[in-house]
Amino acid sequence: MNERLDKQMDFIREIDKEKFITRMTKLTDGKRRENDAEHAWHMAIMTILLSEYANEKIDVLRTVTMLLIHDLVEIDAGDTYAYDEEGKKTQEAREKKAADRIYNLLPADQAKKLYDIWLEFEAKETPEAKFARAMDNLQPMMLTASTGGFDWKDRGVRAEQVMKRNEITPEGSKTLWDYAYENFLKPNIENGNLQ
Amino acid sequence: MNERLDKQMDFIREIDKEKFITRMTKLTDGKRRENDAEHAWHMAIMTILLSEYANEKIDVLRTVTMLLIHDLVEIDAGDTYAYDEEGKKTQEAREKKAADRIYNLLPADQAKKLYDIWLEFEAKETPEAKFARAMDNLQPMMLTASTGGFDWKDRGVRAEQVMKRNEITPEGSKTLWDYAYENFLKPNIENGNLQ
Repeated sequence: MNERLDKQMDFIREIDKEKFITRMTKLTDGKRRENDAEHAWHMAIMTILLSEYANEKIDVLRTVTMLLIHDLVEIDAGDTYAYDEEGKKTQEAREKKAADRIYNLLPADQAKKLYDIWLEFEAKETPEAKFARAMDNLQPMMLTASTGGFDWKDRGVRAEQVMKRNEITPEGSKTLWDYAYENFLKPNIENGNLQ
Repeated sequence: MNERLDKQMDFIREIDKEKFITRMTKLTDGKRRENDAEHAWHMAIMTILLSEYANEKIDVLRTVTMLLIHDLVEIDAGDTYAYDEEGKKTQEAREKKAADRIYNLLPADQAKKLYDIWLEFEAKETPEAKFARAMDNLQPMMLTASTGGFDWKDRGVRAEQVMKRNEITPEGSKTLWDYAYENFLKPNIENGNLQ
C-alpha cells in the first residue's frame, strides 16, 4: 500500500506547481493576475452554488473534480490565453503530452480516472463538461467586469471573439449565459471596452 | 430569480478576496507563501484522491465543499497560524463574526447550507470533518517537508506542538497519519528541524 500512497503523494506534490501558472485575468483588486489553482478553486465553489442553473442535471462532484484538475496540463504546457490565436494552434499537442506525464504519476486506476475526466472536459459533450466550460468562461468574465472591463480594452479583445468563445456557454446554462451577457458583457460593449 | 443570482454573484465576487489571505506555509519552490485559495484547491484534490484511506466512509462532495469554503472566514478574521497561541485566543470570536457576514451574502438556503458545513468543520465530530481536519494538517506538513523542513526550524516550532495539533489527524485517517509521521515528521525530528 505504501507504494500506492507514495505515487499519490508524488502527484500531490507535483501539482503544487499549478500555483505558479499565471493567467491573464486580474483579481478583483485589479492588480495581481490570477493563477490556475486560484481559478480552479473559484470555479469549484461556483459549481456547487450555481449547479441549479445547469440546462441538464449534472453530477456536481464530477464537475467539481473536472474543474479542479482541468488545468494541470498547463504545468508543462503553460497557459494559452483565450484570445491567443497562434498559441491555440499547438495547444492540443502540448496539453496531450503534459497529461500523459502528469496523470501517470498516479496509480494506474486513478491516472485513468482523472485522465478520462480531463478528456471529457476537452470533448465538451456531456452535461458536466458543458457546465464546466460555462464556468471556465464565466469566471474570468465576472472578474474582468468587476475591475471595470479595462483589461479587454488594454488587450484589444473584440466582442466577436468573446461571443465566439462563449458559443458553448449557453449549452451549459442558458440562464447563466443570459445573466453574464446582460451584466458582464453588454455594459462593456456599450462603453467600448469590447470593440 | 435574478435577485437570487445577484446574491450568488455578490458572494462569488466577494470570496475572490480569499486569494489575498497569505498563510505561513511556503510552496514547493521554497519562496512564495501559499494563500488560502491555493491551499483549499490543493486539499480538495487530495480529498478526491485519498478518501480511500478515511477511517470511516466519507461523503466526498461534502468533504470537498467543506475544505473549499472553510477558510472564507479569514477574509475578515485573517489567518491564524497553527502555532500562534495568542492569536488562537480570539480566533473563534473573530471567525464567527466573519461567517455571519460572509455566508449571509448568499440566498438564505445556501447561506444556511454553507454555514452549517463550516460549523461541522469547526466541531470536528463527523467523519467528513475529521477527514477534512486531517487534510488541513497534512497538506502544510507535506509542503514544509518538501522544502527541507527548514521553516519549522526558522519559526522555532516544537515537535510537541505539531503532535498536539495532529491529535485529530489519526481520527480522520490512521493510514495517512502513519504515513505523514514516518515521511514528513520523523526525519525532521531526527535532524533537529523540529525540536
